[in-house]
Amino acid sequence: MYIHGYGERESDRLLAQAASIFPLLHADTRFPPGRRVLEVGCGTGAQTVSLARNSPGAHFVAIDRSTTSLARASERVAAAGLSNVEFLHADLFALPFDTASFDHAFICFVLEHLSNPIDALRLVKQLLRPGGTVTVFEGDHGSGNFHPDSAIAHRAIACQVELQRRAGGNACIGRQLYPMLVQAGFQAPRVTPRVVYVDATRPDLVDSFTRKTFTWMVEAVREEALTAGIIDAATFDAGIRDLNRAAEPDGVFCYTFFKGVAVKGASL
Amino acid sequence: MYIHGYGERESDRLLAQAASIFPLLHADTRFPPGRRVLEVGCGTGAQTVSLARNSPGAHFVAIDRSTTSLARASERVAAAGLSNVEFLHADLFALPFDTASFDHAFICFVLEHLSNPIDALRLVKQLLRPGGTVTVFEGDHGSGNFHPDSAIAHRAIACQVELQRRAGGNACIGRQLYPMLVQAGFQAPRVTPRVVYVDATRPDLVDSFTRKTFTWMVEAVREEALTAGIIDAATFDAGIRDLNRAAEPDGVFCYTFFKGVAVKGASL
Repeated sequence: MYIHGYGERESDRLLAQAASIFPLLHADTRFPPGRRVLEVGCGTGAQTVSLARNSPGAHFVAIDRSTTSLARASERVAAAGLSNVEFLHADLFALPFDTASFDHAFICFVLEHLSNPIDALRLVKQLLRPGGTVTVFEGDHGSGNFHPDSAIAHRAIACQVELQRRAGGNACIGRQLYPMLVQAGFQAPRVTPRVVYVDATRPDLVDSFTRKTFTWMVEAVREEALTAGIIDAATFDAGIRDLNRAAEPDGVFCYTFFKGVAVKGASL
Repeated sequence: MYIHGYGERESDRLLAQAASIFPLLHADTRFPPGRRVLEVGCGTGAQTVSLARNSPGAHFVAIDRSTTSLARASERVAAAGLSNVEFLHADLFALPFDTASFDHAFICFVLEHLSNPIDALRLVKQLLRPGGTVTVFEGDHGSGNFHPDSAIAHRAIACQVELQRRAGGNACIGRQLYPMLVQAGFQAPRVTPRVVYVDATRPDLVDSFTRKTFTWMVEAVREEALTAGIIDAATFDAGIRDLNRAAEPDGVFCYTFFKGVAVKGASL
């Protein structure tokens, strides 16, 4: 289940996130000309545009379960003048592709929402040719740290983590990429951390990441958290206030994403 | 107060730490030939050797409050065949140096132990010539994350954080480098995070960092934590067991250090 919802603010949030952290996350993600790349869970195409632009000679097949999201992703890619992306309405667990029909797979911020991420990786592995690679990106809310520190802000973040857990996901999955790739049977996994560090010397990141990516994401679960009774309104709002405090001139915000790349072995 | 103690295992721990993370932390720390560099709190010289080796033309003045540590640092530097380090028994808050007598200052894992780190930075600033720089390194225990996650392991870590706090220090100071440098009156502060990410693909780091740097450090406060009554023995030992669990083949350990560099302005 996609816990963050499909509203307008969420769409703006995803764009702010992609714009602010794309260079950090994806600058070294390139696919050679002629390769066929599966993007699993492209959503509204926040990553797809830059992905396709960075590898103009590769052919992308981007799938998602939401037709609304796919329509936006398709518009966005067309508006960017890109023609190397094919969109398909499909579920990862019922894919209309032949075994070994892709050279590479790209999965960004998707595994965190699945109750069976290792099964998902195994399915992706079947779709890859031997020697093909999977590239996985995930965040990890346990890595979120800020100054001034605030126990109440951590409680607000914990609401998001708990609701995502109840929906079958795992908001702290980033640190697990290595063991998951191993367990799914991939070879030569290589995981690298990517820290978004934000202080007042980067006002663009203060706005696009601290405020409009992370704090908005936590803030978005307010009603659900109150309805579920896992926090009271005053505490939650104080937590959000303290997260925004980290966006003040003397504030600092840090968050770690993880990139994992692994190879499908010849024998599997 | 240096909360980690001065025992043999602590000395081994500092060496393991320096060996494992020196490239990550200090590879880009170089001082030009002819420059005069103050190292504040060199301890047993764990950083000093590599620092002096990386900048062979610079002249280092390394100070510490412990004569025992200084003696070991001096031996270590001599054993490395380096002759560009001068050792001096001195306290940062009573330094026998003239104003503006250094080009650069280097302070690694020292501010975390001080109750007045901003005062310390101001004193260092006085010793720098206008246009000189300070380079500061600190860890941040709030950044410590691992797989499998364990609430009890976090409680054991919290003992170390609490005891360091009671001793006047701050084990989560890394994230504060930016505001501290600003408050101390430095200009153009630039802070960069340095993540130590450890999984089974790096057995050297599993041993030298996860086990012999971080877990040993937490383990070292056992008696003090029990005496202070902030945890019981069974819980503490279970926490250490869980930290060591992250050093198993499917485990992961992450920790973020911060490097800050800032300039002394012309007018101050």
